[in-house]
Amino acid sequence: MAQVSMPKYLTGDPAAINDFIDKFDVFLFDCDGVLWSGDHLYEGVVETLEMLRSKGKKTIFVTNNSTKSRPEYLKKLTGLGIPGHVDEIFGSAYSSAIYISRILKQPAPKNKVFVIGEAGIENELREEGIPFIGGTDPNLRREMTPEDWQGIADGSMLDPDIGCVLAGLDFHINYLKLSIAYQYLRRGAVFLATNVDSTFPINHNFFPGAGSIIIPLINMTGQQPLSFGKPSQAMMDAIEGKFQLDRERTCMVGDRLNTDIKFGVEGKLGGTLAVLTGVSKKEDWEKEDPEAVPSFYVDALSDLRAGAHA
Amino acid sequence: MAQVSMPKYLTGDPAAINDFIDKFDVFLFDCDGVLWSGDHLYEGVVETLEMLRSKGKKTIFVTNNSTKSRPEYLKKLTGLGIPGHVDEIFGSAYSSAIYISRILKQPAPKNKVFVIGEAGIENELREEGIPFIGGTDPNLRREMTPEDWQGIADGSMLDPDIGCVLAGLDFHINYLKLSIAYQYLRRGAVFLATNVDSTFPINHNFFPGAGSIIIPLINMTGQQPLSFGKPSQAMMDAIEGKFQLDRERTCMVGDRLNTDIKFGVEGKLGGTLAVLTGVSKKEDWEKEDPEAVPSFYVDALSDLRAGAHA
Repeated sequence: MAQVSMPKYLTGDPAAINDFIDKFDVFLFDCDGVLWSGDHLYEGVVETLEMLRSKGKKTIFVTNNSTKSRPEYLKKLTGLGIPGHVDEIFGSAYSSAIYISRILKQPAPKNKVFVIGEAGIENELREEGIPFIGGTDPNLRREMTPEDWQGIADGSMLDPDIGCVLAGLDFHINYLKLSIAYQYLRRGAVFLATNVDSTFPINHNFFPGAGSIIIPLINMTGQQPLSFGKPSQAMMDAIEGKFQLDRERTCMVGDRLNTDIKFGVEGKLGGTLAVLTGVSKKEDWEKEDPEAVPSFYVDALSDLRAGAHA
Repeated sequence: MAQVSMPKYLTGDPAAINDFIDKFDVFLFDCDGVLWSGDHLYEGVVETLEMLRSKGKKTIFVTNNSTKSRPEYLKKLTGLGIPGHVDEIFGSAYSSAIYISRILKQPAPKNKVFVIGEAGIENELREEGIPFIGGTDPNLRREMTPEDWQGIADGSMLDPDIGCVLAGLDFHINYLKLSIAYQYLRRGAVFLATNVDSTFPINHNFFPGAGSIIIPLINMTGQQPLSFGKPSQAMMDAIEGKFQLDRERTCMVGDRLNTDIKFGVEGKLGGTLAVLTGVSKKEDWEKEDPEAVPSFYVDALSDLRAGAHA
C-alpha cells in the first residue's frame, strides 16, 4: 500500500543515511523542535552538525523568530553549545530587512518603515540602513490620549514619509500602535509581515505569535501582508539570493509539516528531512490530505551520525 | 426593471409614510448615522421620535457599542437632546450579560467570566450579578514579566473558576490579556464576543473595533465566538425576549446594510427602513448581490415627519 511519495525512513540504516548526505551540499535547519526544545539541547546535535560540516556541507539556521536579530540568535545557539557564525543564521526579521532594502527599494524620503515588533526587527533594519519609527519606542507604550484620537484621525500625528508597515511579534502591542499602523495602511503603505505563525511556543505552552499580533490589521484593511517567515517563498528566494545555493542540492530539515517541510517542498528543494522530536508526527503525513510530505525522516537529528561511522 | 424586492422610497410621500408608520408598533433604531454623527445630532430627529411616541409607538435604541453600559449610553442620548429611558436602550454588553445570566447559566463556582473590554461590559455583568475578573483591572495593564510567562504557561496564575471569556472593544488591549484569555479558551471556557465590528468609527475616521481586538483569539484557537451585536440574531432573540415584541409589527431603522438592515431582514421583522445619512447608499442595495435590501428608505429620518402633518 506504500505510495511512491512516502518518505524514506533513515534511522538505523547507515547506507541510506550516507546516500542521503551525499545528495546535498546545503542543509537548512529549523531550530526549535530539531536542535533543541526551549532551553534543552537535544543529545548528539552538536556532533551531528560537526559531522556534516566535516564533510564540507553548509549548515544554515532558518528561524521565524523576529524578536532576535542574527547576532542575538547566534548568542542563543552558542549559549546552548552549538558553534556557529552569524552568517549561518537566517531569520524572518533579516529576511524582511533585505527585502525592503534590496527589492522594495522605495525612493527616499518616502521610504520610512513603521515597525510593530521588538528589537530584533529594529536591529536588522538598522543594519540595512533603513529608516524606521515605532518598534520599541517607549513613547508608543502607553494609553490612548484625547490628542491621540484626534491626531491619528486627522493625520497630524502621522509621519508623511512612511512607505511601509513591517509587523512582527510585539510583546508590547497596544491600541495606539494598531491605530497608527492601520492609518498608514489606509494611506497606502506597503504591508509586510515578518511571519504569520499564529502562536509562539515557549515554556511548554503557547502564547500569541506574530500572526495573531498582525491579524487585527488584516481584519481592518482586508489586505494580506507579504510575509517572510517559513513557509513563505519570499524567504526561500532571499536565502537563495544570499547563499547562491543550488536548490537541487539543498535539504530543508524541520519538525513541522505546515511550515518547515512545506517550505522545502514548495521551494522545490532536492529534499526535505522531517525529524520526530518536535510538533509533527508520522501520522500527520500518513493521513489523508497532509499539509506536506517530507522525502526523508528520522526519529531524531542525531540518528544521522550512524551514517558517518558506517 | 424594478424588482419586487426593491425598497419603497418614502421621502416626500405623506400617504406612503402614514401607511409605513401604521404597519408597526415598535421601531428599533441604530444610532450613529441615523440619529447623529459623532457629536452632531441630525436636524429634526427629536421631533420625529416624539411624533412616533405620540402615536403610541415604542422606540428602542440598539447599539453595538460595548464600552458604555445602558445608563452611560442614555447620558449620551440625553446629552445630545434626545429624551429617553434606560429601558429603551439595548447594547451589545447588556445583550451579552443577559445571555450569560439567563441562557448560559453556568453552575457556580465555575461561572466566572474573564473580560476583555471596558467598563460598559463590567457594569452590565455586575447588574446581572455575574462574577468576573479582567476588564479594567489596572493590574492587567502592564508588560509581561518572567513570572507571567511561567505562571500563565503552567496555569498557576489562572483562575480555575473561569467558565467563559467575554471579549469586546478594549482600548487597553495588550499581550498579557491576550495570553491569559487564550489559556482560558484552551482550557475549555465558552467564547463570547459582544460584537465583531472590525472598525470603530470616531472623529470622522476609523479605529480598531471589537472584532479586531478579538480576532487574535480566533486566530489562535480556530474557534469562532458567539457574538451579540447586530447582525447577530442572538441579539434579536434577546430583544424579543425582553420586550415581548411582535416581529411582524417591528421595524429596524439603520444606515448600514451589512449590520442594521441585515439584522432586521434575518430577524424576519415586518420591515426595515434604511436612512441615507450614514454609511450605506442607494447604490449599495441596487448593485448585484447586495449584503441586504431594506423594505423602505428615506433620505433622512426626519423625512418621516411629513406623514404626521398630512
